[in-house]
Amino acid sequence: MTRRTITGFSNPTVKFVRSLREKKHRKQERKFLAEGLRLLTDARDNGRIPEILLMAERREAHPLVEALEAAVDDAGGDVIELPIELLAKVTGKDNPQAVAGVYAEWDTALERIDRMSAPIWLVAQAMRDPGNLGTMLRTADAVGAGGLILIDECADPFSVEAVRASMGAIFTQHLAQARWDEFIGWLRQGAGGQLVAASLREAQPYRGAPYQSPCFVMVGNESRGLPEAMEMACDLRVTMPMKGQADSLNAAIAAAVLAYEVLATIGG
Amino acid sequence: MTRRTITGFSNPTVKFVRSLREKKHRKQERKFLAEGLRLLTDARDNGRIPEILLMAERREAHPLVEALEAAVDDAGGDVIELPIELLAKVTGKDNPQAVAGVYAEWDTALERIDRMSAPIWLVAQAMRDPGNLGTMLRTADAVGAGGLILIDECADPFSVEAVRASMGAIFTQHLAQARWDEFIGWLRQGAGGQLVAASLREAQPYRGAPYQSPCFVMVGNESRGLPEAMEMACDLRVTMPMKGQADSLNAAIAAAVLAYEVLATIGG
Repeated sequence: MTRRTITGFSNPTVKFVRSLREKKHRKQERKFLAEGLRLLTDARDNGRIPEILLMAERREAHPLVEALEAAVDDAGGDVIELPIELLAKVTGKDNPQAVAGVYAEWDTALERIDRMSAPIWLVAQAMRDPGNLGTMLRTADAVGAGGLILIDECADPFSVEAVRASMGAIFTQHLAQARWDEFIGWLRQGAGGQLVAASLREAQPYRGAPYQSPCFVMVGNESRGLPEAMEMACDLRVTMPMKGQADSLNAAIAAAVLAYEVLATIGG
Repeated sequence: MTRRTITGFSNPTVKFVRSLREKKHRKQERKFLAEGLRLLTDARDNGRIPEILLMAERREAHPLVEALEAAVDDAGGDVIELPIELLAKVTGKDNPQAVAGVYAEWDTALERIDRMSAPIWLVAQAMRDPGNLGTMLRTADAVGAGGLILIDECADPFSVEAVRASMGAIFTQHLAQARWDEFIGWLRQGAGGQLVAASLREAQPYRGAPYQSPCFVMVGNESRGLPEAMEMACDLRVTMPMKGQADSLNAAIAAAVLAYEVLATIGG
């Protein structure tokens, strides 16, 4: 087993890993960063092995860390030990986890999605907050959804914030990115699927609405919501009670409340 | 109407307002910062007038801004115009809203809460993410809850991030802060109330559970969840389906799914 020790911040590998916190570098390299033993183990369980494994020096011994190290070594990856302070600088977190990994991004083409493989899919349009994207991935995992489809210009699902908020679901859920016209074209051909949006336009109560599998639950941008044309292209528009002075929920919250209602309706 | 114009970053008022982005200064001054015409108008509608109103120069004229200005002036507050770049520095936001205000914090004693005034209350224990706190306030508003009760050491609900995520609900919802022993003592005396937690311990399905008004929906810390003793002190422990590889939801998401279920059960 080969293992390198790095102690300096100016080391090229450290600089490279750190650069992945910026979108520009992620898109150039098509690699991203994930932290934490739980996440990296979930990733491995789903067949994702990091190209570079970073481990804090003087961490507690743990069989899962050893298993990760062996997996990376088997796959010909790079295993690096470094001081915890250096790991904190790399990941940008004050209390860094003991391990982090650099992963290759994967293909997020819509065509890779088998819509019949799950009863629920989440769809986010022009969502700008990476934390919301990560939270939606986590919710998708919880409701037994197949994955998250990102429409138009969204935040980067491979950003550190999104990966962190996903709590590992970035590795367990399918992820696709498409323009609206591509998505609606794909949805309406072949196997079909019901497109549902939370809306105030010609909407029916979200409880008791006729949800059908596979159900695509769509929410829009945090400030603007969904464009009217997209809402009107939905098979079903549903409305949630708004008892207060505001007229909207956080987009990830709305998606979750709706997704749990769909789950209760269609079973799964 | 008096109005000052400030152009320099070293102006003491600008420095003071900017210092409120730090918790230490907020707690010392017992004041906080909120941004945006919508928020400040919601605040005014709920009787909260800023002590200092900051307005960007060359903003579009807007009757609501004029109404705010008049209200601050009537209350003897300070109205300041400043370049938008300076406002961006004060609020720490790249694309600042055209107005911001400095508000006095208010009393968050538990005793100020009239539990019978609303059918639902949200409770967060040791929640560390200010965005989650703000989102819970926003959800509380949506479900017609009375407010949010913070137990033990939580993030600061008056932080810029929490206020922003609340989308104005910080001004429309009651907010209380208490230690667990104070809270449970208060809850169990007098008027009563049902304490409900999402839990995996001796829990029943969250759908169809016997929720009762006033219902206190409690979630715990983002990493650790609720301590077992607190879960066992609840009147009802409910569980939500977890179909995926993870065993938990984001805390603000769990609170929202549960709160909407309570709303559907008890009406309101």
